[in-house]
Amino acid sequence: MSRSIDLAVIPGDGIGQEVVAQGLKVLNAVLPQDVKLETREYDLGAQRWHRTGDTLPDAELDALKNHDAILLGAIGDPSVPSGVLERGLLLKLRFAFDHFINLRPSKLFPNTATPLAGRPDIDFVVVREGTEGPYTGNGGSLRTGTPAEVATEVSVNTAYGVERVVRDAFERAAARPRKKLTLVHKNNVLVYAGHLWKNTFDRVAAEYPQVSTDYLHVDAATIFFVTQPERFDVIVTDNLFGDILTDLAAAVTGGIGLAASGNINPTGAFPSMFEPVHGSAPDIAGQGKADPTATILSVALLLRHLGYDAEATRIEDAVSADLAERDGSAARTTDEIGDALAVRV
Amino acid sequence: MSRSIDLAVIPGDGIGQEVVAQGLKVLNAVLPQDVKLETREYDLGAQRWHRTGDTLPDAELDALKNHDAILLGAIGDPSVPSGVLERGLLLKLRFAFDHFINLRPSKLFPNTATPLAGRPDIDFVVVREGTEGPYTGNGGSLRTGTPAEVATEVSVNTAYGVERVVRDAFERAAARPRKKLTLVHKNNVLVYAGHLWKNTFDRVAAEYPQVSTDYLHVDAATIFFVTQPERFDVIVTDNLFGDILTDLAAAVTGGIGLAASGNINPTGAFPSMFEPVHGSAPDIAGQGKADPTATILSVALLLRHLGYDAEATRIEDAVSADLAERDGSAARTTDEIGDALAVRV
Ligand SMILES: CC(C)[C@H](C(=O)O)[C@@H](O)C(=O)O
Ligand SMILES: CC(C)[C@H](C(=O)O)[C@@H](O)C(=O)O
Repeated sequence: MSRSIDLAVIPGDGIGQEVVAQGLKVLNAVLPQDVKLETREYDLGAQRWHRTGDTLPDAELDALKNHDAILLGAIGDPSVPSGVLERGLLLKLRFAFDHFINLRPSKLFPNTATPLAGRPDIDFVVVREGTEGPYTGNGGSLRTGTPAEVATEVSVNTAYGVERVVRDAFERAAARPRKKLTLVHKNNVLVYAGHLWKNTFDRVAAEYPQVSTDYLHVDAATIFFVTQPERFDVIVTDNLFGDILTDLAAAVTGGIGLAASGNINPTGAFPSMFEPVHGSAPDIAGQGKADPTATILSVALLLRHLGYDAEATRIEDAVSADLAERDGSAARTTDEIGDALAVRV
Repeated sequence: MSRSIDLAVIPGDGIGQEVVAQGLKVLNAVLPQDVKLETREYDLGAQRWHRTGDTLPDAELDALKNHDAILLGAIGDPSVPSGVLERGLLLKLRFAFDHFINLRPSKLFPNTATPLAGRPDIDFVVVREGTEGPYTGNGGSLRTGTPAEVATEVSVNTAYGVERVVRDAFERAAARPRKKLTLVHKNNVLVYAGHLWKNTFDRVAAEYPQVSTDYLHVDAATIFFVTQPERFDVIVTDNLFGDILTDLAAAVTGGIGLAASGNINPTGAFPSMFEPVHGSAPDIAGQGKADPTATILSVALLLRHLGYDAEATRIEDAVSADLAERDGSAARTTDEIGDALAVRV
């Protein structure tokens, strides 16, 4: 394991700056003395776009390529037309760096407010495909703006892309105590993509007899997320279904303030990128109200990806302990939460 | 208003037969003496497909066209390859009869078990587009079954199709006390379809100044469904997002056993079709365990569509009263629930 980390940091928009600062604080606190941490901040997001019209120029994309990993805060601002930053920056990074594993763990930590009665025991991981599906930008519009307009969106799915994410999910399921993997799709309607996903899943499943498997349509999966979330261990699904399911998963496990994610390229060909699932929340930006825990848990995923397992676990344990012991009624500032976790790790 | 109803009945698969029988029982009980009810049953679904290979032959499609409305139980069986009946029968009907309004009310009735803590006050309607989006069957696969396979699904959206469902939703919102309409899409990623939906929505909104409007990405909408469902009044959305959201809505309002739907062609050019949101539940079929309430509430939607408003309301009030007064602990059979509601109306 390399004893240095060269980290690219993209604070981005809204609360991005604040939460990333706490992520770096905890990262510094948890790393052993002999690990050299270098960070370089990239000025990308809404302000940059307003100033220069750039979302992600080639020079910066090239520079980002040379880091060991990327920590991203949040992207998006109401002053920028919808889609410009999402597609020009966030999705561009995911696609350029072939982040085909979008890893999103969901765990109901002690003492957090879930909207679900009975506080079910939730501890699952969604392995969301990150480089295909309806996210490819394929599509277009004809006679745009007229009463005869036709607009299409094309979901592109390849055997290459589906098999690699399905294999990754089987590996993750095999390494967990419950060893259970659920495929979520909508193969009764989206039959072409659905058959590719289901056939690939069934074929790879034969190589993992120790993993029990299951299939759910995406609509039915949302039902189980609220009525029986404890049934899930690992879920593998396409880019769009994964987007929807992981926001719902965040909601039932105490909210988007705690949901971490990793955009991972397991081959190491490109740097992987870690970010909270939440957005830029412009309404509370700059007020010290944002919960940095999701970013701090994303730092744990980053560390595990780089081989610092013990440090990753220390952060996750610190979050668990911090939530278990806090006084639920007292709101803490972004900084206070970061400090509390930095001390604990 | 015509004083006769010529109803096509498609019991379908699994619990379809049982729940439709109760729907007809309540329909007979609620109709005034002078309304002549004629029903014709159509043998369509898994058994028919096994016997003859037919899903929906032209002769039956033509015959169905002549009824005033269609009552459908449930379609689908594990013995039939996924998609065959869904696309060959259910979706074929929705598309052939241009059911562009897929109406799905969600209400948390008294005394029903919601998985949400705090029992929020839920009473909203999803107006799901029913004839476009990723449900059109456009798409295909290349090099199928090889490691070089590419499978696509095309979401098709037209100004014609989007505008008519958006207008219908504004009309419905304007007629409700809270007069609030939320558009749900994912226009930061699906920019072509997203722009068409958003631009159409904003343009039509100008004609309804009394309706307050709102936009949510589909992922964020799932969060609010569990954390703040009381914020919704009317929701308008595309075919796939509507499919996902209405199952989640059913789950938070006491389960799929209570969720009704109407596949409506408001022009009257073709018969509209009413069905419970739930599936055929083959695991409990024939055991008298299925809750027929969703079908009975679908009969209420059917009656309202045909102009029998008072009768529709009588059914809805009966369901409310029945749920409020029942002993939550005692499980009732399909027949008992149907009898109780038939007596009440
Ligand atoms: C901002 C948006 C493009 C993004 C997505 O849809 O993937 C976000 O919702 C997420 O889940 O990371
Ligand atoms: C059975 C299936 C084709 C259908 C759909 O996806 O529309 C169902 O889920 C529904 O919501 O009515």
